[in-house]
Amino acid sequence: MGGTYVGIDVGGTNVKIGLFNTELELIRKTSITTEAEMGPEIVIDKMAKTAEDLLAEAGLSLQDIVAVGIGTPGPARYSEGVIIRSTNMPKFKNVPICKMLNERLGAPIVFDNDANVACWGEYAVGAGKGVKDIVFFTLGTGIGGGIVSNGELVHGCDENGAELGHMIIHPDGRKCNCGQKGCVEAYASADSTARRATEALEGGAESSLKKVLDEKGRITSKDVYKHLAAGDELAKEITDGTAKALAITCINMLHTTEPKRIVFAGGMIAAGDKLLNRIKHFFNEHIWTLKKETVEICFATLGEDAGIIGAAALAQHTEQRTNSIT
Amino acid sequence: MGGTYVGIDVGGTNVKIGLFNTELELIRKTSITTEAEMGPEIVIDKMAKTAEDLLAEAGLSLQDIVAVGIGTPGPARYSEGVIIRSTNMPKFKNVPICKMLNERLGAPIVFDNDANVACWGEYAVGAGKGVKDIVFFTLGTGIGGGIVSNGELVHGCDENGAELGHMIIHPDGRKCNCGQKGCVEAYASADSTARRATEALEGGAESSLKKVLDEKGRITSKDVYKHLAAGDELAKEITDGTAKALAITCINMLHTTEPKRIVFAGGMIAAGDKLLNRIKHFFNEHIWTLKKETVEICFATLGEDAGIIGAAALAQHTEQRTNSIT
Repeated sequence: MGGTYVGIDVGGTNVKIGLFNTELELIRKTSITTEAEMGPEIVIDKMAKTAEDLLAEAGLSLQDIVAVGIGTPGPARYSEGVIIRSTNMPKFKNVPICKMLNERLGAPIVFDNDANVACWGEYAVGAGKGVKDIVFFTLGTGIGGGIVSNGELVHGCDENGAELGHMIIHPDGRKCNCGQKGCVEAYASADSTARRATEALEGGAESSLKKVLDEKGRITSKDVYKHLAAGDELAKEITDGTAKALAITCINMLHTTEPKRIVFAGGMIAAGDKLLNRIKHFFNEHIWTLKKETVEICFATLGEDAGIIGAAALAQHTEQRTNSIT
Repeated sequence: MGGTYVGIDVGGTNVKIGLFNTELELIRKTSITTEAEMGPEIVIDKMAKTAEDLLAEAGLSLQDIVAVGIGTPGPARYSEGVIIRSTNMPKFKNVPICKMLNERLGAPIVFDNDANVACWGEYAVGAGKGVKDIVFFTLGTGIGGGIVSNGELVHGCDENGAELGHMIIHPDGRKCNCGQKGCVEAYASADSTARRATEALEGGAESSLKKVLDEKGRITSKDVYKHLAAGDELAKEITDGTAKALAITCINMLHTTEPKRIVFAGGMIAAGDKLLNRIKHFFNEHIWTLKKETVEICFATLGEDAGIIGAAALAQHTEQRTNSIT
């Protein structure tokens, strides 16, 4: 008996749930639609029911659960187990999600934000495995972040730390959705990459992307990377802007928590080595000459499952740490 | 019995040594010239003798020492207790300083770099007291840094972390001594502040500082702040450049380890509120609007003694943590 960890990854559209053994190997997983408009009671009830069904399918029961990990978008008071509010789930206001889940599942609930949970997944069993210090970036619509320093997640004084997309690399630079100017997110997220390309085309730049913009009325970062692969010069220039912004941010993190490995995740890593090699190029071009640095820059390896694996791994870590103290 | 902690602060010119009780109150302190040219054996022997003399003067002996803390400039392998080399002490190469001091003083030796030690001093009993997350900057010839996250110093994977002066805030900007371009140190250290003023004067800027440059052949950051106090416009502009660079770096740290308090130390804080208020001004102007932030930005309070207090406090902390684990 025993030895089962549940990982739950809550998104605006879907909730993913996975069961893991003590080696953090996936036993079984599923995905349900979030239906956030039904309100927190119904959503959380459905999560719990789905977890129970998964257990039953695997020949397990609630008694086998050691701990449950759950990741949601912020803002929340993670250590208190409360979702404060959520852009994608307007009915979720001051929801004591840990208490509610604990009442249904009986096991300790470990709660953190989605980026931290995915970061922990990569740290525990993915691209960050085997070192004690990593920095993690998710490159999507925005840029999320996570930091593991000396084997623990960095949360910060109000649990708002590691918002790495909002480090300023160009004071008074491009406007960011957060209200600041010059954030790395304003240059290097998927949205910003597409926007910089669109602006260049509207400014008269020559590119095979022009046809896409004319036909579809918009371009995405995927278009940029597709045309990069085909050798388009503008796509190369835009990618270099993205890669350089990310490289500068990597250097800044090296001078902060000094990670051994920097892991990029999110939709944009589909761009592959053409993006990764340019990040490494600009990193090497801009890094100091004082000391030889041995940081590795790489892509995440867990893909879509990072959230559920990370949640389960964090539940295990927290449970083991708590037991070693008490 | 016992209850005495020794704090040692090694600089290129002087070594400061202090005795502290368990409340980290200073019992007695002294300062000796480093005489680094005599080589490590003689210097370390002198440190140990001086500590013994201090103990004797206070009616104490070696048996009363619980632990010794020591801070030196890097680079070193702190966890192994070895100074790799030192710009100011060329004869110090691969010196096992912890082993050598331990053989003389008999107590456990806790070793860290000078900025971390001063940071820990402010954290334990100075401007950072009472919170669990601080960021610390020393504004001198260069800019040093320290980070306390969740009650522990951040060292990084190779013990080179928290080199906060070398975070890049202007990619391809002003050249820094470290080899990078656009570091905060290249704008906001005492040297860079003076250099920016000198460049402006050489470029023809009107200022009461012109006379100082003509008469002395150079100006210092002290001159800049003196003329700022007297209302000089160029001095105000240069100070704003310094303050804005520091403010951007504060924002970046808020998005990284999210400190509750940011503490500035070093010679340049003699500029007083005229500098501090401008840092706060630019911080508020550039910080995001997403969440209300409650970080406090302030000056250090321990002055010259931060090194010995910090070393003693770190020795106490490390000793207590070790004992609570074993």
